[in-house]
Amino acid sequence: MDNALILQNIERHIDLEKAEQEVFVGMLQPQQLPRKSFFLKENEICRHSVFVTAGCLRGFTVDHNGFEHVLQFAPADWWIADMYSLVAEKPGQLNIEALEDSQVLLLSKTDQERLYREVPKFERFFRIIAENSLVSIRQRLVDNLSLSAQQRYEQFCQQYPTLINRLPQKQIAAYIGVTPEFLSTIRARSRKKK
Amino acid sequence: MDNALILQNIERHIDLEKAEQEVFVGMLQPQQLPRKSFFLKENEICRHSVFVTAGCLRGFTVDHNGFEHVLQFAPADWWIADMYSLVAEKPGQLNIEALEDSQVLLLSKTDQERLYREVPKFERFFRIIAENSLVSIRQRLVDNLSLSAQQRYEQFCQQYPTLINRLPQKQIAAYIGVTPEFLSTIRARSRKKK
Repeated sequence: MDNALILQNIERHIDLEKAEQEVFVGMLQPQQLPRKSFFLKENEICRHSVFVTAGCLRGFTVDHNGFEHVLQFAPADWWIADMYSLVAEKPGQLNIEALEDSQVLLLSKTDQERLYREVPKFERFFRIIAENSLVSIRQRLVDNLSLSAQQRYEQFCQQYPTLINRLPQKQIAAYIGVTPEFLSTIRARSRKKK
Repeated sequence: MDNALILQNIERHIDLEKAEQEVFVGMLQPQQLPRKSFFLKENEICRHSVFVTAGCLRGFTVDHNGFEHVLQFAPADWWIADMYSLVAEKPGQLNIEALEDSQVLLLSKTDQERLYREVPKFERFFRIIAENSLVSIRQRLVDNLSLSAQQRYEQFCQQYPTLINRLPQKQIAAYIGVTPEFLSTIRARSRKKK
């Protein structure tokens, strides 16, 4: 199995010695997720941090009216988890589903705690990852509160440039918070503007 | 100056030896913020993490139509910062204002980086703080996408029980995303339900 992608992801923020790399890599469990399979369902307890090496996952919630709200897409080189459930060890609201045939590396919560003890500099890595996620989800909240659907679509294009032409319209619509029909109108308008 | 509150806040997550406490406390700059004064304004660069020891601050953005959106309240024992601006060292969108006469302790970004080098266990502390903020802001996003105003008000009451009768209605309305008039209707309904 090829761990180059995840090591490169880690080494963007911390330097690892050979022995530290080996401790970390020894904790990773590879898993295949066929398209449309779920890694996590609502009301389950999330016990892993997930790193995507191929394909694309999405994290979404379902509201009382049955509407799906996509909180995050995770293509290769992204981390995803239900942070609430992972931290609190309680059932969460998040569903994590593969949108394409995907490959992931799992780091269990138990191993992650052991990693912090054995290689404390991983505290730094996951601090930076949490801060970056915080920045991005807060921006999303600000956008939802204050931008029009058209502007939210443009933000989406900036944040996930590789996904615009790769994901089904339905998924992008569930992220932006509009119907797929209205998304078509928005996209047509955006093309005109260029 | 009394540092008991901030040390207690830190020691909820990590244990500090006497010498480590002293390094940390030596970095803190106390500041008074009179009611209605701003600690940070939109388009400024946020250079501090702020810990509130008395009073109450709010973090808010202003949209193109001039509407204020409150992202966070920070009463005593809470941390607040424009994380985007702090991390990226670029001008941010957040305004941080004192809602009451307040006292804060400031930790500059430069000192925080030095703290990570001198007392690395602070990486752990700020990782946990960032993860908890991430959980709470993601819940807020989910609530905004899927709950009614009435339900969002009930969530607010759970998250900030000490603030319900302390803050002006206008501020709570700007957090929930309704007009102050509609908030009155919601509160009347909530009282009836009890």
